[in-house]
Amino acid sequence: MYVIDQSTPAATPIEGLAHATWAGVSDGLTQLSVWRQTLTPGAATPPHSHSCDEVVLCHAGQGELHIDGQVRSFGAGQSVVLPREKLHQLFSVGATPLELTGIFGQTPVPVRLPDGQALELPWRS
Amino acid sequence: MYVIDQSTPAATPIEGLAHATWAGVSDGLTQLSVWRQTLTPGAATPPHSHSCDEVVLCHAGQGELHIDGQVRSFGAGQSVVLPREKLHQLFSVGATPLELTGIFGQTPVPVRLPDGQALELPWRS
Repeated sequence: MYVIDQSTPAATPIEGLAHATWAGVSDGLTQLSVWRQTLTPGAATPPHSHSCDEVVLCHAGQGELHIDGQVRSFGAGQSVVLPREKLHQLFSVGATPLELTGIFGQTPVPVRLPDGQALELPWRS
Repeated sequence: MYVIDQSTPAATPIEGLAHATWAGVSDGLTQLSVWRQTLTPGAATPPHSHSCDEVVLCHAGQGELHIDGQVRSFGAGQSVVLPREKLHQLFSVGATPLELTGIFGQTPVPVRLPDGQALELPWRS
C-alpha cells in the first residue's frame, strides 16, 4: 500500500467545492493529510481554522485568502502558508476553477468554525 | 507572508537531483515541510529514512520505490505514502525527468542514513 492513485475530486455538500483525500490516517499516516480540491468560480470555503499547520498549493485559477481582516490574492505558482490556529477563508475569484492541494500537519484534520465549534467534515480526512 | 511563490528546483550536490523548498520552518511552520524535486533519468536519492510521515506526489516521469526489500513502480497521478522510520530509496527510471512534491510531517526534515547517522541536507528544509 505504499503507492496509491491520486483520485479525482468529487462533489461535496459545500457548494462549488469538489474534494479528494489523497493521503491521511487511512493510509497508515499519523502526522499528515493531503487533500486535492477544486473550487468553481465564486465558490468559497467557510471561515475556519485548524489546530495544525496548513500549506495550500495553487495549481490553477485565482484565489483570495481572507485572514487577519485582510485580503491576499494568489494564483497558479503560489502557495498559501497558514500557521496553526489562524482563522481563514479561501475564495475562488477567477473565471476558471481554483485548483488546490491542501496539506495538513495532522490527520484526521481538525477544523473549527469562528465560534470555536468543531466542524464535522463531509469527507474522510 | 501568507502567500509565497513556488520557486523552481535548482541543482544540488546530489547528482541529477534538483530541489526547491516550497514551505517549512522559515515560513513560520512548526509541523510541515514541502519540497519540490526533479530527478533526471537515472538519478536516485540515497537510501534513507525520516522520523516523520512522508507523502510524495508524482506529477510526471516514472519512478521506483525500493522499500522492504521490494520494488514498487509509480508514475504521474500516483503518490507514495511512507509511514515514519521506513527506510526507502527513490529512483528515476523513465526517459523523462521524475517530477515530485515531497511532503513531510516535521520541519526541518530529519533524514537518517541506513546506519542511523543523520544526513546533513544540502538545502534549507
